[in-house]
Amino acid sequence: MEKVPKDEVQGRIRAFQSILDREDLDGAFILQNVDIYYFSGTLQRSVLFIPRKGNPVLVAIKSFHRAKEESPLKAVVPVGTGNGIVPILREYGCTEMGTLGLEMDVLPTNQYLWYQRCFPDSRWMDISPQIRRLRMIKSPYEVEQIKKATAILDKGLKEIRGVIREGMTELEVDGHLALIARREGHMGILRMRGWNQEMTYAHVLAGESGAVVSFCDTPHGGSGNTPAMAQGAGFRRIRRNEPIGIDYGVGVNGYVSDQFRTFVIGSLPEHLEKAHECSRRIHDLLVREGKPGISCADLYHMAEAEATRARYEDFFMGHGEGKVKFIGRGLGLEIDEYPIITPDFSETLKEGMVIALEPKFIFPGQGVVGLEDDYLVTPSGLERLTLTDQTMMTVC
Amino acid sequence: MEKVPKDEVQGRIRAFQSILDREDLDGAFILQNVDIYYFSGTLQRSVLFIPRKGNPVLVAIKSFHRAKEESPLKAVVPVGTGNGIVPILREYGCTEMGTLGLEMDVLPTNQYLWYQRCFPDSRWMDISPQIRRLRMIKSPYEVEQIKKATAILDKGLKEIRGVIREGMTELEVDGHLALIARREGHMGILRMRGWNQEMTYAHVLAGESGAVVSFCDTPHGGSGNTPAMAQGAGFRRIRRNEPIGIDYGVGVNGYVSDQFRTFVIGSLPEHLEKAHECSRRIHDLLVREGKPGISCADLYHMAEAEATRARYEDFFMGHGEGKVKFIGRGLGLEIDEYPIITPDFSETLKEGMVIALEPKFIFPGQGVVGLEDDYLVTPSGLERLTLTDQTMMTVC
Repeated sequence: MEKVPKDEVQGRIRAFQSILDREDLDGAFILQNVDIYYFSGTLQRSVLFIPRKGNPVLVAIKSFHRAKEESPLKAVVPVGTGNGIVPILREYGCTEMGTLGLEMDVLPTNQYLWYQRCFPDSRWMDISPQIRRLRMIKSPYEVEQIKKATAILDKGLKEIRGVIREGMTELEVDGHLALIARREGHMGILRMRGWNQEMTYAHVLAGESGAVVSFCDTPHGGSGNTPAMAQGAGFRRIRRNEPIGIDYGVGVNGYVSDQFRTFVIGSLPEHLEKAHECSRRIHDLLVREGKPGISCADLYHMAEAEATRARYEDFFMGHGEGKVKFIGRGLGLEIDEYPIITPDFSETLKEGMVIALEPKFIFPGQGVVGLEDDYLVTPSGLERLTLTDQTMMTVC
Repeated sequence: MEKVPKDEVQGRIRAFQSILDREDLDGAFILQNVDIYYFSGTLQRSVLFIPRKGNPVLVAIKSFHRAKEESPLKAVVPVGTGNGIVPILREYGCTEMGTLGLEMDVLPTNQYLWYQRCFPDSRWMDISPQIRRLRMIKSPYEVEQIKKATAILDKGLKEIRGVIREGMTELEVDGHLALIARREGHMGILRMRGWNQEMTYAHVLAGESGAVVSFCDTPHGGSGNTPAMAQGAGFRRIRRNEPIGIDYGVGVNGYVSDQFRTFVIGSLPEHLEKAHECSRRIHDLLVREGKPGISCADLYHMAEAEATRARYEDFFMGHGEGKVKFIGRGLGLEIDEYPIITPDFSETLKEGMVIALEPKFIFPGQGVVGLEDDYLVTPSGLERLTLTDQTMMTVC
């Protein structure tokens, strides 16, 4: 079992303490499991307090022994049966509690109210935007983890080509993708930060399924097989000469990779072939232009202009109420990280960002075609992390 | 695609409006996806307002068309590009906004603060305990859905017996369980309400893996294959003559079923065989005694007493810091529903509750044995919903 290296955790804490200093906060409670993992190396049920200066304290609820074993932090303390976290923090020197940060985008209200009661004299600030911006820049260690996830996807997409047959249901293909993912070490979950957003390891969308709009913040959603899940694969059977869109994601050591490929048994109508080619051209364009310093808005507009040149603007990134106004977003411990490649995100690309670019075309009643690949922003441009060939994947 | 029947939704709304009346609330915002699904029949991104009297209003964000198609509610309204939900609610006659309910156990703080700003004169109350108590009693429609999930598990547990082989990794077995589940129609997710709690469709825990403590609120956790997930299957290979604990859960139309069986290639040491037998005796005992009116505390103590009589009290429901003080809990749209079969839950069994009973024994360094089955509380006692044989599952 690979642990998060000590220098990774130390570097993250140092960077966060600079943020606390800049924002004039005395400290922050880190309470969401993913953020706790990022700053401590363990996901065991805990409360992490990071003071502006000095050592963070991880108060472990369950399992203490596992948290102690996994985390390189110095102060890993069992919550015990005593008076809870307030005296523990005091004992460890965390006494400045004037203005404190909380992850208010995800923290349940009852917990917010509980912390207000515990520290009645403190003022509170939402520290999530700063955490998300910090997590946006990946270390070489983090990029390595994403590459491991990418390697599983590459293997899976090759293997599934030999599994897909006419008459199979989307759900059968989906199940095979799950089997491959887990066998190869997918950690079993893809995490999203967005409220009420959920994601399975795959969308398998044959023909018109690929054009079904869902609650998901994605250009395609799929019908699923129940309104209670309302996305991804269903009992629709796969036919010849229709696009089979497969969005596939796995995680290794917390870090996810996410790819989309278009499969076909036989061949596609010319306009779908051309739209797929257009998606590929958009990738080439963004790889050439995607350098540190370019704005997310500019990247989006470039992609949109290319889609418009090909006269596919009506189908670009969804259709009707399903249309989304982004062509990519950051990847890391969550699949909806910063940056978002949209006109509304006021950031430029920076070295160390990892982004998934997903120019896709959705044709009502016909399906989805396109490509999604993951890239690292390097000083010389975008480096493709995904390995899978970018051509249409024909099933024999 | 099966929709939630109109009379189901109407009955739930009526019952909830009685609660609003009893609690003297003017209405409640329902904002969590699962609760929205329960009260409206759709899980599309929406804001649901239920007034004390009159019609609920579902303001749909995405997809409006799908929400309109799936929900039997009369007022399904697109959020539009106007001034948002406040004028829409006013237009639909929701003008009494003095004291309002919110799901404060799950609602993110930022949203709570947003609602406070939108309705500055309102007082707010946590309505989640009442929602959880309402959802605790299942209708015949809901029990039918759970039975469909149960049928998938029965099929899967039989099929996996032919798949498990010495030398396979836990993850391979886990992947096959996923393949079967999805092929048969598992909706692709198991939802938990608890903060930072997560669950995959299976725990496959061979030998000592079954005794690894995790953050999960369960007697067994497993190591997983990374501290970033820290539960369930890992790369541990399956050996002869050791317990292979398989916890398997799937969902159909939102409703989950959850079962645990112990598999073995060869045979187990006598004390593990006996502990498994003790788990089976506890099930028999609880089925006999589990009638409407009996307290959750009494059920727990009966089970504990039986474990103590067999001299396995140190291993009952975990060991060391992994010990949990419950032997079961409610099942429905979430896998951590009410009631909780623990001394700390002040409820008696009621007709229509569906509970998973999971008396298990965890032997440090050796693994987990036991049985988990799902039951419906009927006037004459507990009716087992799960179909799988309760003997140890020997793999040939």
